[in-house]
Amino acid sequence: MERLTVHASVQYDIFIGNGVRALLGEQLKAMFGAPKVCLLCDSNVAPLHLKEAADALAAQGFSAASFVFSAGEQSKSPETLFSLLEFLAERQFSRKDVLVALGGGVTGDLGGLASALFMRGMHLVQMPTSLLAMVDSSVGGKTAVNLAAGKNLAGVFRQPDLVLCDLDYLRTLPDKDFADGMAEVIKYGMIADRDLFDSVKDGDVKDKLEEIVTACVRIKRDVVSRDEFDTGERAKLNFGHTLAHAIEKESGFSVSHGAAVAMGMVAICAIADAHGFSDVLTFPAVKAAVEHNGLSAVSPFPLPSLFAASVGDKKRSGNAITLVLPSEIGQCRLKTMALERWKELLGA
Amino acid sequence: MERLTVHASVQYDIFIGNGVRALLGEQLKAMFGAPKVCLLCDSNVAPLHLKEAADALAAQGFSAASFVFSAGEQSKSPETLFSLLEFLAERQFSRKDVLVALGGGVTGDLGGLASALFMRGMHLVQMPTSLLAMVDSSVGGKTAVNLAAGKNLAGVFRQPDLVLCDLDYLRTLPDKDFADGMAEVIKYGMIADRDLFDSVKDGDVKDKLEEIVTACVRIKRDVVSRDEFDTGERAKLNFGHTLAHAIEKESGFSVSHGAAVAMGMVAICAIADAHGFSDVLTFPAVKAAVEHNGLSAVSPFPLPSLFAASVGDKKRSGNAITLVLPSEIGQCRLKTMALERWKELLGA
Repeated sequence: MERLTVHASVQYDIFIGNGVRALLGEQLKAMFGAPKVCLLCDSNVAPLHLKEAADALAAQGFSAASFVFSAGEQSKSPETLFSLLEFLAERQFSRKDVLVALGGGVTGDLGGLASALFMRGMHLVQMPTSLLAMVDSSVGGKTAVNLAAGKNLAGVFRQPDLVLCDLDYLRTLPDKDFADGMAEVIKYGMIADRDLFDSVKDGDVKDKLEEIVTACVRIKRDVVSRDEFDTGERAKLNFGHTLAHAIEKESGFSVSHGAAVAMGMVAICAIADAHGFSDVLTFPAVKAAVEHNGLSAVSPFPLPSLFAASVGDKKRSGNAITLVLPSEIGQCRLKTMALERWKELLGA
Repeated sequence: MERLTVHASVQYDIFIGNGVRALLGEQLKAMFGAPKVCLLCDSNVAPLHLKEAADALAAQGFSAASFVFSAGEQSKSPETLFSLLEFLAERQFSRKDVLVALGGGVTGDLGGLASALFMRGMHLVQMPTSLLAMVDSSVGGKTAVNLAAGKNLAGVFRQPDLVLCDLDYLRTLPDKDFADGMAEVIKYGMIADRDLFDSVKDGDVKDKLEEIVTACVRIKRDVVSRDEFDTGERAKLNFGHTLAHAIEKESGFSVSHGAAVAMGMVAICAIADAHGFSDVLTFPAVKAAVEHNGLSAVSPFPLPSLFAASVGDKKRSGNAITLVLPSEIGQCRLKTMALERWKELLGA
């Protein structure tokens, strides 16, 4: 088991390992006394893990309610958010009580925002069940729901009080979802850790999950500690994401986030290599790493067609966009350029 | 003109005086360069003040959009909130742009929350047009919308970047709404400033608006600077509010907030005097001040009937409630008691 501490506007612990879900009850008691607990879960995760979590809390004397919503990105909506808030209010939860987000990225983002809004802030525990949520969305405090106009456009920064990354949950994760998480793992390797990149570009990653997840969370923890509110360096975590968000949008969100990040990373490396932004060629290694992990390297949409969708993003500012470009494997840099130049690079 | 600076998690200025609305353009330029501006306004305030504000911004070269919603508490809803967020997204606002809440408490609370959520935070200027919003809701960063289960149950703490309290706006304020604001002014006198209380308990308050508004904002500023996130002293600002919220709720919100605060203050003073919580009698003076300012001292609902509604509030914590009790005119204290004791005090 690994334990990392995040030092942001608030300080909190992340436990990583097999079986760390068993820590939930004792941690809640130590941190909050005897709170009421609401377990938030989607319809995929509920049949797998909800009963065990609820029973464990009940056995330790907690009053626990459960709110289950339909699995899928379409639930990351104002409607689900406010259904959950009404549910909490009707059951007389207070700001001293705890919401536990047990699930993947949608559950974590939705639960994070709900916990921030309910009575202007109740406690939050993230218990990610997907690899993507473990290495990315459960740490760092970005919460959101989607608007009709785009993903993640309504949210707040809100750090959790505790994160429990139980690697046992990954045993029930479908291969496709595991691959989605690997896209973000490759991203961490690309932006900050050549050893991590090398360790996942071949061989069996499932043998070394604790090391891999810990390495990713440590990178994210360090970046978030230095730039919690995303005004500078934190943008590096968006490596591959400008094009990924455009691909997701163009596909009507039928391409998953991880799959789109894989395509987005490969494409931005190709652009960087072709136009001399990278110091060494990065495209071949990233393409190989992505494909080794069961991900496609090729966008279903030609790059020129992605320009419009890529600039509606939060990363745009007036007539400029800030891109994350690879320098070499394990290092990247931020570059702000005119939208016109970005359009050219995409061949649009 | 008065200028006060708030030192909370962020620092911002509040300008108070006749004509300070003219500062908007130059302040925006100085603070944010050349942002896009969205003016948020309800259907009562729009015909009175929106065109002037929009024209002034246009004359100074700003691109300004307007979002007008139906006046009334029913618009402080998830639906209006997300309509506004979609409006901002469709018009390609970014986090560097500015939302200006031009109106009363509903506009300020709704605009504050929207500005906090849009892309996880865009800029916010509060331009209160009601006395209540000037002395209370525009300063201090409490934002919210209502849930079906209760008022202000979904929100965040989010300080504005600038507050412009233009006293000229009060000339168009209906007498009833002016009286609502006076309830909060009396509250500030009761909790922190005997001179302020004395200055409004008789005579014509409209002769001394700048002094009165400044005195109230200074008290609020000082309390918020010491307890931004409402974990202690800030609760004093809720003097009269536990019963006020219950009266509003029981009336289906047909009793306005200010009217309910007046009744709530008088009732809690009566209880405090009768049970020896106050050091001197407070009820006669508060009743007189309330009535002098055109407010009713008497709740339309008997106190015992308000118990249930009074404990669904955010101020409840488990089986206890924290009340704000008067010690004397100009001083109050927080007292946490068992719900059973509170029930007894209400005669329920």
